[in-house]
Amino acid sequence: MAEKLIDPWGSGLLEDYEKIVKDFGLEAFNPKMFPEPNRLMRRGVVFAGRDLARVADAIKGRKKFYALTGIMPSAEKIHFGTKMVIENMAYFQKHGAKTVVAIADLESAAVRGVSLAEARKRALEFQIPAYIALGLDPKKTLFYFQSENREVTRVAFEAAQKITFNEFRSTYGSPEPSRIMSALTQIGDILYPQHEERMAGIVPVGIDQEPHIRLSRDFVTRTQSTLKFTQVSSIYHKYTPSLDGGLKMSKSKPESCIELPEDAKTACAKIKHALTGGRDTLEEHRRLGAVIEKDMVFELLKQHLVEDDRELQEIYEEYKGGRMTSGELKQIACEKITVFMNGLQEGIDDARSLVKSKELNFIS
Amino acid sequence: MAEKLIDPWGSGLLEDYEKIVKDFGLEAFNPKMFPEPNRLMRRGVVFAGRDLARVADAIKGRKKFYALTGIMPSAEKIHFGTKMVIENMAYFQKHGAKTVVAIADLESAAVRGVSLAEARKRALEFQIPAYIALGLDPKKTLFYFQSENREVTRVAFEAAQKITFNEFRSTYGSPEPSRIMSALTQIGDILYPQHEERMAGIVPVGIDQEPHIRLSRDFVTRTQSTLKFTQVSSIYHKYTPSLDGGLKMSKSKPESCIELPEDAKTACAKIKHALTGGRDTLEEHRRLGAVIEKDMVFELLKQHLVEDDRELQEIYEEYKGGRMTSGELKQIACEKITVFMNGLQEGIDDARSLVKSKELNFIS
Repeated sequence: MAEKLIDPWGSGLLEDYEKIVKDFGLEAFNPKMFPEPNRLMRRGVVFAGRDLARVADAIKGRKKFYALTGIMPSAEKIHFGTKMVIENMAYFQKHGAKTVVAIADLESAAVRGVSLAEARKRALEFQIPAYIALGLDPKKTLFYFQSENREVTRVAFEAAQKITFNEFRSTYGSPEPSRIMSALTQIGDILYPQHEERMAGIVPVGIDQEPHIRLSRDFVTRTQSTLKFTQVSSIYHKYTPSLDGGLKMSKSKPESCIELPEDAKTACAKIKHALTGGRDTLEEHRRLGAVIEKDMVFELLKQHLVEDDRELQEIYEEYKGGRMTSGELKQIACEKITVFMNGLQEGIDDARSLVKSKELNFIS
Repeated sequence: MAEKLIDPWGSGLLEDYEKIVKDFGLEAFNPKMFPEPNRLMRRGVVFAGRDLARVADAIKGRKKFYALTGIMPSAEKIHFGTKMVIENMAYFQKHGAKTVVAIADLESAAVRGVSLAEARKRALEFQIPAYIALGLDPKKTLFYFQSENREVTRVAFEAAQKITFNEFRSTYGSPEPSRIMSALTQIGDILYPQHEERMAGIVPVGIDQEPHIRLSRDFVTRTQSTLKFTQVSSIYHKYTPSLDGGLKMSKSKPESCIELPEDAKTACAKIKHALTGGRDTLEEHRRLGAVIEKDMVFELLKQHLVEDDRELQEIYEEYKGGRMTSGELKQIACEKITVFMNGLQEGIDDARSLVKSKELNFIS
């Protein structure tokens, strides 16, 4: 718990995340726990978790475990936060996890007003192909629609008995019925992969999803003597910051938010206007070097665009040493994001054919 | 609305029900609206409803409509209230209603802690046979388990969006998640028979179920422009009073509560101790006659044990005229309930074989 957060390439946001770890009683993430940690794990973007040892042990001992995430099929685009979730899912999949993706059509119908038929169409035409393009192995991933999964509803009903109204209010603030129904259904989703066999499981999420994890874990604890679910683990990644320096990219500021997929030219134009750690004059920049922890472009490279650690280290040193300007850094980011976006679009197109050919594993 | 409540054979409880009609804004029930009104309708036991004309018109115009009720598969016995619901269901079934019975296994699992498997067993071995024995035509009745009906969950999710927390609180007092989940699922049940085709429908209930009806009707109104459900009607019967004169038979007072089925001797013993309208001395009784509106045995005969109106009229006159004593009345009730209980047990046994032979219509 006292372990230092690992962020070898700095970030001005680190302090906030240390506070979160403390406030929420999370475990700080240590990449040494897991074999072949992925980019996000190695670089401190994954920063915390719950019950991580249980999953690490399952990987090392080749025991059964699962990784679960959801698709909200109302969205037109996905964002970098979702990309990180998928990358972590892909990591656990590669290391033996039974991989399950819940398509939250009930929630998107209820909360976003998207009909179930429309949600199904969007999931098949966009989100599922995008999840595959971003790294999930379609042959090894199980998908289901919430509206077709009776087991999820059953567990949601059980959970309704075990969580009080006051807990909902303290967890979500506004205890509207739709919120309660969604939260209960998410508990059903999170535990669904254990319906035939109890096993460890991990849910990769952004920190804003922590309330769902907490409620699910409370439910598991409270029903230990009867339902005997294995306690579920979680792993948290930081947000991808807004290009203007805000905590989190958000569609409410479209000029500082890159969505996936996006036209490469548009993405480059946004990067061009990003907040950097470059100095006011070239002379000053050469002399003092960049302020990396304020640089949103470097953060983007670190989180998403540079796979190789040595390459990132080199950029870091050149930029911090003042030998690379923020214009040059932006140029690198633009080139990288162009390759990434073109590859992503191609990947989505390929995966879409796969979905059409019905080679996916749907549970109903 | 100003229509007088019809209760040709009196009841001390009438005033309470008039107040209910007024307070809840119900329509007073008029048996002339419906062809061949059943015993409960003719005698003012059915006392109110909502949107009754819509269903009366469907019957007269031979239009499609449905009648819906539920089974709570955790109960070991059923009570006279359920018997009245089934009798009204049977009435509408006979007059052309598509008849649907929702087996609330999700609710009994969540609220009563009965597992889904156990709930299924109890429904098949007891409640469904009892519902058939009490008058439902097994060939014309559709049954479903909540846990297997995805459409119900879908509508419940929609309803979660349209009903606020404050409405739940004002409706149910305690807005616990389990209560909210159950109420939303009941809305799903009530509208389920319209899932393929919109049509009028009626839900026979005791007045304590009015909150569910109200929420369902509010939901239909609020989603009129999108979901276009036909507004649902309801019909309310009075309680069968406790044998000691209380408003409602209750298991909490077993000596004043006859359950179905029950051993005829036990039932007779309970009747023997019932509150009657007999006078203190025989002389006084002969002179003044019985106080019918305080007589729980007469109420039982009226509500459940005497089918023929002329026979009931005769008993009424003899008893009110003091020519029949309350001992004699109890003797009649004991004979009638013995026939009834024996017939019921036989009917349940017969229907159980039918259930085993799988001649029922289950939707899943």
